[in-house]
Amino acid sequence: MLPVIPEVVAIEDAVLAAHVQALLDDKTKPVGSLGMLEQLAHRIACILGTDAPVLQQPQMVVFAADHGLAARGVSAYPVDVTWQMVENFMAGGAAVSVLARQHGIALNVVDCGVARDFAVREQDPEDKLPKAGQPRLWRRKVAYGTQDCSQGPAMTQQECALAIRNGVELVKKLPGNALLLGEMGIGNTSTASLLLTKLCGVPIEQVTGMGTGLSAEGVQRKIAVLQQVLALHAQVSEPLEVLAAIGGLEVATMVGAVLQAAAERRVVVVDGFITTAAVLVASRLQPAVLQRCVYAHSSGEPGHALMLQALHAKALLDWQLRLGEGSGAATAWPLLPAACAILREMASFGAAGVATKSV
Amino acid sequence: MLPVIPEVVAIEDAVLAAHVQALLDDKTKPVGSLGMLEQLAHRIACILGTDAPVLQQPQMVVFAADHGLAARGVSAYPVDVTWQMVENFMAGGAAVSVLARQHGIALNVVDCGVARDFAVREQDPEDKLPKAGQPRLWRRKVAYGTQDCSQGPAMTQQECALAIRNGVELVKKLPGNALLLGEMGIGNTSTASLLLTKLCGVPIEQVTGMGTGLSAEGVQRKIAVLQQVLALHAQVSEPLEVLAAIGGLEVATMVGAVLQAAAERRVVVVDGFITTAAVLVASRLQPAVLQRCVYAHSSGEPGHALMLQALHAKALLDWQLRLGEGSGAATAWPLLPAACAILREMASFGAAGVATKSV
Repeated sequence: MLPVIPEVVAIEDAVLAAHVQALLDDKTKPVGSLGMLEQLAHRIACILGTDAPVLQQPQMVVFAADHGLAARGVSAYPVDVTWQMVENFMAGGAAVSVLARQHGIALNVVDCGVARDFAVREQDPEDKLPKAGQPRLWRRKVAYGTQDCSQGPAMTQQECALAIRNGVELVKKLPGNALLLGEMGIGNTSTASLLLTKLCGVPIEQVTGMGTGLSAEGVQRKIAVLQQVLALHAQVSEPLEVLAAIGGLEVATMVGAVLQAAAERRVVVVDGFITTAAVLVASRLQPAVLQRCVYAHSSGEPGHALMLQALHAKALLDWQLRLGEGSGAATAWPLLPAACAILREMASFGAAGVATKSV
Repeated sequence: MLPVIPEVVAIEDAVLAAHVQALLDDKTKPVGSLGMLEQLAHRIACILGTDAPVLQQPQMVVFAADHGLAARGVSAYPVDVTWQMVENFMAGGAAVSVLARQHGIALNVVDCGVARDFAVREQDPEDKLPKAGQPRLWRRKVAYGTQDCSQGPAMTQQECALAIRNGVELVKKLPGNALLLGEMGIGNTSTASLLLTKLCGVPIEQVTGMGTGLSAEGVQRKIAVLQQVLALHAQVSEPLEVLAAIGGLEVATMVGAVLQAAAERRVVVVDGFITTAAVLVASRLQPAVLQRCVYAHSSGEPGHALMLQALHAKALLDWQLRLGEGSGAATAWPLLPAACAILREMASFGAAGVATKSV
């Protein structure tokens, strides 16, 4: 079974791009003096295809799953933390819960493959949209975690295709024009490191960090395990095969979500190392995905800066965040509607009666 | 006449600082994994003196004045732009107007010494607070601009003292516990460069940039003028004497405002090069001012990074902003209440039933 990959058409509206740039240049400020705020406004305008962009009903989606590789001690935390944090997201106590509430972002949590069943919640009917401020749990479990990828493939091609389809179909159900990416899965910085090495050829030693809190010794152990994984899957090179070989289920579901969001020309707000890895995989399937992305932050995990470099991406914040969950995307979120407001609402020199440059 | 300088008492509550750090460390995340978001929460908590900080009624104050030195061609824009931009602030079309509206920040514009009279506005009664979203013009004109500081002192000691007092008294009238700094004054990057050189000894060539848009040739001309100013005032070294010699009236008024805000333990959100220069001067009068500051961004003006370094300050954004007006402070603003929410609302490991680090 091959997954159905949504087609992401390249945005090539040079007329709109030039028009938006001219609007920005004529605002009552020296040309370019709002730096990245202007660049952000320009990008969002081009994604949404309008010179008066309005971001509506932003949707944070936190993709959660477990990893067979975690049994090899690649994380500082026990695997139970994955399901415990899902409960914490739903209870409103996690960082992403607090930030989503603070900024009016809808919080969707997806069980893509957590190694535990969650109690049925009456407030999660599939046919109704969640109420503002209420987190929503989506049940899209493909398996109770992946297999240990140091012993064999993390998932079958079929599981991988199913996870991607889940992501595609989920985004179709979500309102709004902005998708914020988050994730939870003990062991998934290993997944991101492996994907970066396999898809971009960066040596594994350079892309492996402390994750959420390994010691220096722990990092060395992690590198040894990851080298073993790479040796086992040395023959695999196609993006979808690599994804199935390495995992995880939350990454595969996210790949589908990113592809669908990009196909619909939603603004995709990328969080840290793991969500950027999903964007990397998606971009190997449909390169125009990258046009739809805004990168919230460059994280404290060493591989992330290298991955952003490989994608020619510049992040909004450099805050040494390394939590994941979508916490960086939610932190940076209010910068996006502010950029849109600058484009929509600032006066031009002519309209405001302000003189332009004299020398 | 010597200005009355509010006393800024050093915050030395080690018990609260340790308690807030312990609270942050026990949140459901690896220790330190929210990076600068945690540091920001810690700083605001210590300024406000509480483990549950809430930022209330943020006040943006844009200090405006003209500079005699501008006649020497140190800016790319004609001096009329100062008053024209004040009108633009009041009409709601400037970047800071848009951003203040977007984020629910009250906008106060202060005529500290603009070379033009503004029409009387009925909506600016001194005894009433402004309505939400309505900009307020405060009339605190000390003179119609400073004198040309390449020919003599920019202002008299008396004018300088009056401007400082205006800033002190204005802040006493403002509600809330956060002050955002902004400024407008054609020629005032020259003022900031001169203050940095005089107070920190950094060579003028290193701290002089394009301002809002000079050419490379224009920058060389600007440096030559600034060298002339420095030669004229070579004997002046006390902070208040330097301020009077160099200017400007908006900087002096801002120094008073920063001192009063710091004395009241408000959070002071610093914008770019010129507002940081005011903080630098204020810190030479009352060093504990620096404890109350949050630096919104590191600007595209070369002197700003050097000035932040001199103050041991790390900025939240590195966006190549070089507009001034308070646009950077207003852009970064929503990051501050988000940091407070993290401290107040995130669950602890115990409360959420999440396991802690295992290795």
